[in-house]
Amino acid sequence: MSAGAFSFRLIATDGAARCGEMTTAHGVVATPAFMPVGTQATVKGLAPETVRAAGADIVLANTYHLMLRPGAERIAALGGLHTFMQWPRAILTDSGGFQVMSLSELRKIDERGVTFRSHLDGAIVELTPERAVEIQALLGSDIAMQLDECVKLPAARGDLKRAMRLSLRWAERSRRAFHDRSGHALFGIVQGGDDSGLRGESVRALVDIGFHGYAIGGLAVGETPEVTLKVVDEVVPALPSDHPRYLMGVGTPENLIDAVARGIDMFDCVLPTRNGRHGVAFTRRGLVSIRNARHAADPRPLDEASPCAAARSYSRAYLHHLIKANEMLGAMLLSEINVAYYQELMAGSRQAITAGRFSEFCLQAKAGWAQGDLPPQ
Amino acid sequence: MSAGAFSFRLIATDGAARCGEMTTAHGVVATPAFMPVGTQATVKGLAPETVRAAGADIVLANTYHLMLRPGAERIAALGGLHTFMQWPRAILTDSGGFQVMSLSELRKIDERGVTFRSHLDGAIVELTPERAVEIQALLGSDIAMQLDECVKLPAARGDLKRAMRLSLRWAERSRRAFHDRSGHALFGIVQGGDDSGLRGESVRALVDIGFHGYAIGGLAVGETPEVTLKVVDEVVPALPSDHPRYLMGVGTPENLIDAVARGIDMFDCVLPTRNGRHGVAFTRRGLVSIRNARHAADPRPLDEASPCAAARSYSRAYLHHLIKANEMLGAMLLSEINVAYYQELMAGSRQAITAGRFSEFCLQAKAGWAQGDLPPQ
Repeated sequence: MSAGAFSFRLIATDGAARCGEMTTAHGVVATPAFMPVGTQATVKGLAPETVRAAGADIVLANTYHLMLRPGAERIAALGGLHTFMQWPRAILTDSGGFQVMSLSELRKIDERGVTFRSHLDGAIVELTPERAVEIQALLGSDIAMQLDECVKLPAARGDLKRAMRLSLRWAERSRRAFHDRSGHALFGIVQGGDDSGLRGESVRALVDIGFHGYAIGGLAVGETPEVTLKVVDEVVPALPSDHPRYLMGVGTPENLIDAVARGIDMFDCVLPTRNGRHGVAFTRRGLVSIRNARHAADPRPLDEASPCAAARSYSRAYLHHLIKANEMLGAMLLSEINVAYYQELMAGSRQAITAGRFSEFCLQAKAGWAQGDLPPQ
Repeated sequence: MSAGAFSFRLIATDGAARCGEMTTAHGVVATPAFMPVGTQATVKGLAPETVRAAGADIVLANTYHLMLRPGAERIAALGGLHTFMQWPRAILTDSGGFQVMSLSELRKIDERGVTFRSHLDGAIVELTPERAVEIQALLGSDIAMQLDECVKLPAARGDLKRAMRLSLRWAERSRRAFHDRSGHALFGIVQGGDDSGLRGESVRALVDIGFHGYAIGGLAVGETPEVTLKVVDEVVPALPSDHPRYLMGVGTPENLIDAVARGIDMFDCVLPTRNGRHGVAFTRRGLVSIRNARHAADPRPLDEASPCAAARSYSRAYLHHLIKANEMLGAMLLSEINVAYYQELMAGSRQAITAGRFSEFCLQAKAGWAQGDLPPQ
């Protein structure tokens, strides 16, 4: 297929781990990349300049939410999602399928697509593979995802097979509906649950269709990390090495580097912002629940060695106070700190892969998390 | 009285309006000054650097909230309020009296002070004039306020008189309890409700005691703007011209310039942040309720001529979307825009007073508000 000006270039590999860069219509994305989630055209609690300052080259936005409010045609009329949310860098949009399955009522899936009732106003909405591609073009996202059906695990093989085959037929229709535009990409999504045979069938068929990149979907839906990694191990070798690989909805910092070690290039997850809003910080020393009384009088910053100023300058006592007092600034600062930590982890991974010491980097990162937080003063 | 290094200097006057500067232990405050309210050691929804970038030289923090959580002694142990909230500029703290009256249960006022039940954990707490001064010293605020009793209007003259006289006795005790420290100030509070005689008695007695500055309290408690201005008109001439004058809890942009015209130097109010959280913006063209459907598809910024980048760069459609979707960023941006507008109004007032054209400035500002928002496109 013609990839237009969208391109992916490998810079270095270290075992299966890869360091690369994707060139999009809105700038270069260094990989491995973590995409902060901007569900409703905003990364919750963060101004776009804060997201960028944290190191993000790309954010994810949700087709399902934006098609319902404010609407894809409205965003297009307003100049597209980049202008709308004042984020001048790359944007990936999901297809809406996952949220249709998890958020909407009265959904009905058939060959044509999925029909559902909006969780906002009860309106009946239809989402087809073609409409999902059209919506994402209206939004103007740099990377669009095919519509797929995602089945929660555990699931019967018959259900996984039916959903995977339907997703493949939708993949073909999505690919046909996608108009190549310079710097814009469409990714296919590998389905098949935790079944090796189904995953194999899915990935072969998708590669035959030919996409700009490939996502592994249907994970981070309740399975153990071992299952996640097993599927990654099975799928990655069947993917072309010259295209980006995206593990959808994953995950914790440990999940991320374990998947990078297996050849994954891209991630998204709500954990950094959701945990931040709930007062839980990701740090070099693992999770820190700032709401815990042990921080109430602690003048030390969350992490004096963090590249994120908020993690260095505010005391734990102040962050504790803000979260206990339910002040917006607490959620804002911890979301910023967490997004920055995820970016730091990806930047460290890229450097380590380039230097041929990614295994060592992973061991050090895990040792830091295992060490746990600073002892009380 | 010795004012230490705290000083107030008049730069220019225009009629009764004054432009000046207060020198505090944490920098110079240009007056007329509007103090954004940081109730719980944070201006709601704004990082301290955003508050500073909006133009604020000084913020207000609430003794009542901070004495209950996290506690004055704790903040002192953590290096004081400036360090705690990472705000290196001036801070004024109220005495706690107003919130005791409005927020706490089972309050009992007697000569000694006020005893109340914490709204947080039900603990019985006593606040005396001496303790209010001590707490504010522990917080390390640049400007402390005397404990007073504030009576809601309308009120019987007998109640106003009793509360005013009690506040005067507390003023004397507050002044004795206050230890002069370089750059730190204690303000007395004029009470007396809407009664000219009582206000006159209050202001004369306070000036006899001698404070670094004088506040007019007991307003913005339900009376009309006409009553507010009548009291200001009666009190201001009795205040020494070489000390700052602070009108507590006021108000709207119009209230502010009307009071500046009568010789007031300082203001605080929750309106810019509270309205911002509720999707209401203050602009040169008056109030704009961004939640209104007329903004849903409007690509224009809130105010293209605003010195605040957020008011110039984001579309009304995006702000509308954020507020409708209950996204934190909506509250953050509108709070920033409103705080910046209040600062712009004060900066404009200072320039106009210095140039001898403050009356014209007020007429222009009011004409802009009366003009109303941009017509729909």
